[in-house]
Amino acid sequence: MPVQSFSFQLKTQGFSDVHDLTSRVQGLLKSSGLTHGIVTVFVPGSTAGITTIEFESGVIEDLKRAIERIAPQHIHYDHNARWGDGNGFSHVRAALLGPSLTIPFTQGKLQLGTWQQIILIDFDNRPRHREILVQVVGE
Amino acid sequence: MPVQSFSFQLKTQGFSDVHDLTSRVQGLLKSSGLTHGIVTVFVPGSTAGITTIEFESGVIEDLKRAIERIAPQHIHYDHNARWGDGNGFSHVRAALLGPSLTIPFTQGKLQLGTWQQIILIDFDNRPRHREILVQVVGE
Amino acid sequence: MPVQSFSFQLKTQGFSDVHDLTSRVQGLLKSSGLTHGIVTVFVPGSTAGITTIEFESGVIEDLKRAIERIAPQHIHYDHNARWGDGNGFSHVRAALLGPSLTIPFTQGKLQLGTWQQIILIDFDNRPRHREILVQVVGE
Repeated sequence: MPVQSFSFQLKTQGFSDVHDLTSRVQGLLKSSGLTHGIVTVFVPGSTAGITTIEFESGVIEDLKRAIERIAPQHIHYDHNARWGDGNGFSHVRAALLGPSLTIPFTQGKLQLGTWQQIILIDFDNRPRHREILVQVVGE
Repeated sequence: MPVQSFSFQLKTQGFSDVHDLTSRVQGLLKSSGLTHGIVTVFVPGSTAGITTIEFESGVIEDLKRAIERIAPQHIHYDHNARWGDGNGFSHVRAALLGPSLTIPFTQGKLQLGTWQQIILIDFDNRPRHREILVQVVGE
Repeated sequence: MPVQSFSFQLKTQGFSDVHDLTSRVQGLLKSSGLTHGIVTVFVPGSTAGITTIEFESGVIEDLKRAIERIAPQHIHYDHNARWGDGNGFSHVRAALLGPSLTIPFTQGKLQLGTWQQIILIDFDNRPRHREILVQVVGE
């Protein structure tokens, strides 16, 4: 079957909480039995994002600081003024990073670099349960 | 047929003009008859971008302000000095956000969050007619 | 579903060195013999990114300046303090831009705008050999 749909759950803490998804995605890819194609990793929701990074605590702190420069938590957000939930910064950060990442695989393996991991960043301002979608398309 | 290609037109105003594409994309997906796979939403051109956001006027203003911090309209751009069209900021913003978004669908439905809409942001400095491509790959 | 996997090598200089990949990707697409589908262009590694831009030297300089504003080279990075390789800025820039781009093709042609080229940006702080993956999925 050329399309296979998977998902898994994750508990997050918000405030740019970063999780390494690589082994989960690789495991689901293996269970698909497909050997060549693309995997799309997607987070439903408007306050989280997906990208890749070297999953090393120093770089992760550096990334969080860069995100704070781009969309600081404690400036004025119209969203907060209207809805009172205080997570305007979360929405802006998520829109800029994006919720989707597509990765090639060959011979059943994600074609990532050695020091390149797939990460979820949860930008919300409270703990969340996230569902991560892993859509495998190939042969 | 496992690949189906669609497109639609949009009039935009530039200067980070944001349009919600979700219902158009969902409608085209439905008309494809495919039930499982991925949809790629793509904007040809070098002065617009695609992402997701909660389509709410407060957040949209907040996003526009963040984009203005990242690539301010009224600073020096080499592009303007050479070409005189004054949209150097538009090109930089578009390159940073990216023109492409890939979304999983299952049972014929885009797997977006409830408050997560697909948006086009037109960064150009004048009204434009945009063509949005919707490529459906699945089964 | 037919999948064809390609790759090619590239020498880069780092420090936001930008390379136009369009003609290479279009050539590989043609050699695949597929006419309708999507192409994923992906760079393995955690210090480079993929996007589109008008490949014009003015805009490229403007983009480099924007990236320097977002993640300046000469500020403190925890990554540098721990690993001593001095490329903390490279990792942060790459995570923000992302390593992947998916483009629709119809009738054997990438559906890019006339002034829209596919680019690699190498953010590392030294010359690198990069492998670019081009995964074609379609029919």
